[in-house]
Amino acid sequence: MSGYNVSIVGLGLMGGSLAFALRGFRDCRITGYDIDAGVAAAALERGAVDGVAESLRQAAEDADLTVFCSGPRTILENMRSCAGVFKEGSVVTDICGIKHDILAYVDGDMRSRADYVGLHPMAGKEVGGFCNADPAIFKGAGFIIVTPGKYRPESVELLRELSEYAGAGRVVINRAGEHDRLIAYTSDLMHISATALCRGYPEDMTTAHTAGAFRDCTRIADIDAALWTELLTKNAGNIAPFLDGYISALTDVRDALARNDQAFLYEFLDRAAQNKRKIKTL
Amino acid sequence: MSGYNVSIVGLGLMGGSLAFALRGFRDCRITGYDIDAGVAAAALERGAVDGVAESLRQAAEDADLTVFCSGPRTILENMRSCAGVFKEGSVVTDICGIKHDILAYVDGDMRSRADYVGLHPMAGKEVGGFCNADPAIFKGAGFIIVTPGKYRPESVELLRELSEYAGAGRVVINRAGEHDRLIAYTSDLMHISATALCRGYPEDMTTAHTAGAFRDCTRIADIDAALWTELLTKNAGNIAPFLDGYISALTDVRDALARNDQAFLYEFLDRAAQNKRKIKTL
Repeated sequence: MSGYNVSIVGLGLMGGSLAFALRGFRDCRITGYDIDAGVAAAALERGAVDGVAESLRQAAEDADLTVFCSGPRTILENMRSCAGVFKEGSVVTDICGIKHDILAYVDGDMRSRADYVGLHPMAGKEVGGFCNADPAIFKGAGFIIVTPGKYRPESVELLRELSEYAGAGRVVINRAGEHDRLIAYTSDLMHISATALCRGYPEDMTTAHTAGAFRDCTRIADIDAALWTELLTKNAGNIAPFLDGYISALTDVRDALARNDQAFLYEFLDRAAQNKRKIKTL
Repeated sequence: MSGYNVSIVGLGLMGGSLAFALRGFRDCRITGYDIDAGVAAAALERGAVDGVAESLRQAAEDADLTVFCSGPRTILENMRSCAGVFKEGSVVTDICGIKHDILAYVDGDMRSRADYVGLHPMAGKEVGGFCNADPAIFKGAGFIIVTPGKYRPESVELLRELSEYAGAGRVVINRAGEHDRLIAYTSDLMHISATALCRGYPEDMTTAHTAGAFRDCTRIADIDAALWTELLTKNAGNIAPFLDGYISALTDVRDALARNDQAFLYEFLDRAAQNKRKIKTL
């Protein structure tokens, strides 16, 4: 090994998958830490990590790169706990799907010898936990690098290299505000749509009545309610205009159906189809 | 061949796929008809059908089983045109996704020697046309047999046998009212949801910002606007309560986000997740 140390804090679906995906990256040694020692032991046994840290502090202090992979609140708490112990010149990142709070801390009162740049791999599964970890989730995925007010350009290059090593299909760089606003549409609104579709269903329906349309539109409805309550409430301000726009669009369709306005419906559906095709090229 | 003749009228995605799927069914001879002679010729050349009818009437008059596979309006027009020419004892069906008008005709002023029972294979693709025909779309799919007021039980058994031969995962029998109401939820509402999600999008988003959640929730947004204008308007009465309920659920989420009501959001998301899991067992 190269002497390059990567620590992964939080070995759930995302941290576990990333550990597998980073095997061999810069010929590094990967240390894992999880608040559940059984999970860390499983990660070691399955070869996701080379070693297990005894404590959060130990995971942070030897690392050249620390990747925080827990839920949003825990990531921020962990970063606060570790700020003073990171090595000089090391890089700290996280995979959190919402960046406002973390970046506010980094740009505000974080005092550390490490350089922080955020990362959001646009990948996941509708099931969580290390037992579902799979590096294939990153293949072709978008990776968003999220920059604070000040950072070393080499840290961004490191994260780009890491993203590409993990299998990124495309890497973009955003500020936290841009990231959170765009994610409010591409992720949060989709999860709200899918769960609202499953709030109720006709009692006499069967699986024979459901095809690809139902399966796909509701796939992500089997949601981690605690995680998503946190993600949605933390991004509420960005979600509001998209959710209002969505409700307004649905209300337009309802009204057009009520007055049998076929011209409106055709234009609505045709524009959506055109937008869907355009989005694939963005 | 057995002397059993199946005619498929309309050789688009559904008719073409069904023709391929029914190769060998009851050792039948399959005759195809399409208003576009080039499409019918392509179906013959690719071996989807054994022969091509010169006219709609010719397709109907020799068939032991006629399957109408066009869009909703055309199916009804074709059935009216052919009612007088169907063979004594033959069976007529269609694959239309909305049954009210057809069943109203069958139960009303249809005069024919044939027995009609409807069929709705819950399968499709977001692209249409014979060039996209693929019998694999029926593998594991739900098939809904839709019964009129009077029918011969053997016709239902024939359609069940046909459905299973085509690869049905599950076959259920509904009256038209049940079918159209359930489809308003499992299909129409999903298409409205997906297209409304694509009515607008942030100008600075890129494909790096979209992951599985976005792709799945909007897959069907690249829609055949003319076909779906027809399907939605014909089922408007059944769609209305589901669409109202959906808008109401989304409004509840919006309001809960505005007042930071995490308990409400957790319960909402958790119930959706539970429902999503329940639906898989129905």
